[in-house]
Amino acid sequence: MGLVVQKFGGTSVADAQKIHRAANRAIDAKLAGNSVVVVVSARGKTTDELEQMAYEISDNPSKREMDQLLSTGEQLSISLMAMAIQAAGHKAVSFTGGQVGLITDNAHSKARIQRIDAERITSQLDQGRIVIVAGFQGVDENANITTLGRGGSDTTAVALAAVLRADYCDIFTDVPGVFTADPRVVGEARKLDRISYDEMLELASLGAGVMHSRAVEFGKKYNVRIRVRSSATDEPGTEICQEADTMEEIVVSGVSLKKDVAQITMDHVPDTPGIAADIFALVAKANIIVDDIIQTEHESGCATLSFTVDSGELKAAEKVVEEVRASWPSCKISYDNELAKVSAVGVGMRSHTGVAHSMFRALAQAKININAITTSEIKISCLISRDQGPQALRAIHKAFNLESAPTREGL
Amino acid sequence: MGLVVQKFGGTSVADAQKIHRAANRAIDAKLAGNSVVVVVSARGKTTDELEQMAYEISDNPSKREMDQLLSTGEQLSISLMAMAIQAAGHKAVSFTGGQVGLITDNAHSKARIQRIDAERITSQLDQGRIVIVAGFQGVDENANITTLGRGGSDTTAVALAAVLRADYCDIFTDVPGVFTADPRVVGEARKLDRISYDEMLELASLGAGVMHSRAVEFGKKYNVRIRVRSSATDEPGTEICQEADTMEEIVVSGVSLKKDVAQITMDHVPDTPGIAADIFALVAKANIIVDDIIQTEHESGCATLSFTVDSGELKAAEKVVEEVRASWPSCKISYDNELAKVSAVGVGMRSHTGVAHSMFRALAQAKININAITTSEIKISCLISRDQGPQALRAIHKAFNLESAPTREGL
Repeated sequence: MGLVVQKFGGTSVADAQKIHRAANRAIDAKLAGNSVVVVVSARGKTTDELEQMAYEISDNPSKREMDQLLSTGEQLSISLMAMAIQAAGHKAVSFTGGQVGLITDNAHSKARIQRIDAERITSQLDQGRIVIVAGFQGVDENANITTLGRGGSDTTAVALAAVLRADYCDIFTDVPGVFTADPRVVGEARKLDRISYDEMLELASLGAGVMHSRAVEFGKKYNVRIRVRSSATDEPGTEICQEADTMEEIVVSGVSLKKDVAQITMDHVPDTPGIAADIFALVAKANIIVDDIIQTEHESGCATLSFTVDSGELKAAEKVVEEVRASWPSCKISYDNELAKVSAVGVGMRSHTGVAHSMFRALAQAKININAITTSEIKISCLISRDQGPQALRAIHKAFNLESAPTREGL
Repeated sequence: MGLVVQKFGGTSVADAQKIHRAANRAIDAKLAGNSVVVVVSARGKTTDELEQMAYEISDNPSKREMDQLLSTGEQLSISLMAMAIQAAGHKAVSFTGGQVGLITDNAHSKARIQRIDAERITSQLDQGRIVIVAGFQGVDENANITTLGRGGSDTTAVALAAVLRADYCDIFTDVPGVFTADPRVVGEARKLDRISYDEMLELASLGAGVMHSRAVEFGKKYNVRIRVRSSATDEPGTEICQEADTMEEIVVSGVSLKKDVAQITMDHVPDTPGIAADIFALVAKANIIVDDIIQTEHESGCATLSFTVDSGELKAAEKVVEEVRASWPSCKISYDNELAKVSAVGVGMRSHTGVAHSMFRALAQAKININAITTSEIKISCLISRDQGPQALRAIHKAFNLESAPTREGL
């Protein structure tokens, strides 16, 4: 007998009909002979509504109380899901994060899971019940309710799958799986059958939006077979798994576009040790998340240092940089808030050449100028003008022939 | 330094403005030098909305899951209340029933409090925080969420006041206190400054609607000074307390009307031992709550046995009675679903005569027929025609002179 974890996102439990549909999936898995654990997010717009209530009361609600408030969203979903399964004549029981002993640190609004008491769940599974667990939430050592931040329900599901040694963890969502590119931008985008954790991590952090990085990291760490599937169909979706040998034959698995990128460029920075450290210490202190950092040196002995942040964080970043400028009056600073980042991702890049060339040629042919380039082992990214983002994505999707078949050596 | 418990009902936290107003009351009490514990109910229509969600999913949701669902209503209120107090610059922390160790039995939807871990609350109070506790809810020994049933938030407040040895427990509501009669029915009704636990219990069980009996019973048992007050004004309200000697001078403290009473009358019941026991065993088994029971014997050796239930329960009661009838074919059964019960309550009745006479005379003068009479030590009740209920209430309110001053001996 197997054990499966199924996770349903907010849109998959948005109304009574959808809850029944999700309940039936759990029941089907149960009738197929599995022990079934279901992880549920807050319904559709619930979290937004709760946040709005809070901001009607306070401009700056405390994070502890915000967690206390937001966690009701999933608690609502789990009880309704249990009722739906029971209404169909099957045994079910719902648990909050605290009730299954999902213990986190006390970093409210972005807590990290420390441990899960699997015993409560397994004892219920052994009694033949489908166990419904609230995603996104836990409690700290003192029973204060915490939330796991963005993508938290995915993380809960994968963590439970790891602890319970589940055969697989199905992430049901409103898309049929992971695509070679965002299908809303690239009409020819193709669904992938499999993708490695590392590729998925690059795509997730680049804004592919299907699954949050933390959940994928968790899956990688504990080797959880994750399947991203549509809650509306019975299609198998995309499996996220360990890298297999055959995967290396595929040079580029997918391309992604991150809109809303802002770049800060500091020119004529004295090229002496410790300067980058000084700058990014201040940036970190201001809680600004830096995406890419690029530094180049000039013969003059000065350096150009640039970094990117989300557009929304540019104002805060500007403030920090203007403080630093006082120390180097010669430094020239410029800001560009009209950028996007287009990237190609694939584990095959490690052992293949010519990928960068193909990408740059495709952008050049589309008359798209490249502002900056960054690379990792399995990723090439170009900063480009924001209004050319969709066009750039389509161009490189086409260049790597992603619409028809895996790209192979010798492009 | 004192310790006060303040309880705010659903209407007192229905919107952001009302939450701020309630928060200010708590802050005022704190600034006056008290430790302050606030108990909050679910906002306005929240509980109804949650119930509706459940019934969209299932006709017969399990009580455990219903408790899991409904308890989110108070959790929402406590976090918003804490945010409001914090927004005003004061320290606050919110706790669910489970978080303050409010342990109940496992009778979901009508659980009884077994104990409360006061330590968590007092340690927060000692750190200068206003402590907000969710009313209506607790957890059983296995951390399953339970709810306390109707009036549960009042019970939570009074129980906390008892455990914390509070100076008093303020119940803030949408009426200014306890009245000699329902002011919506009797225009001349007068607010009482004080009322004894026993009188309040009779009034509560008779439908006065201000406070639920269980909370008053708790207050009586642990001698908690309860004050029923308006959340909209600074008036002192009505204090519910131990009976004082002076109270006996007041023969009738208040009158009340219970609408929607149904009576089942069984005539020609064989007058042999055990018959009433048989009938009410079946009634109890069907979970029907019986209000009054009246039995009279005839010279013929037969008895007339009648009892009253809430109108809504008449159908269920009829079913039980029709089963019993088979055993006594001679028995004649009749039902009356058009009744109301009007009552006069006062601890002074114990030592005063003529109260019943005054009441019956007032009803006769108003040409209201009495169907049945029941009495307790401090109460006289008459069953009357439902459509004459308001008129009857006004008549006896006037007869006991309740609009102007306490009724005294020698009416």
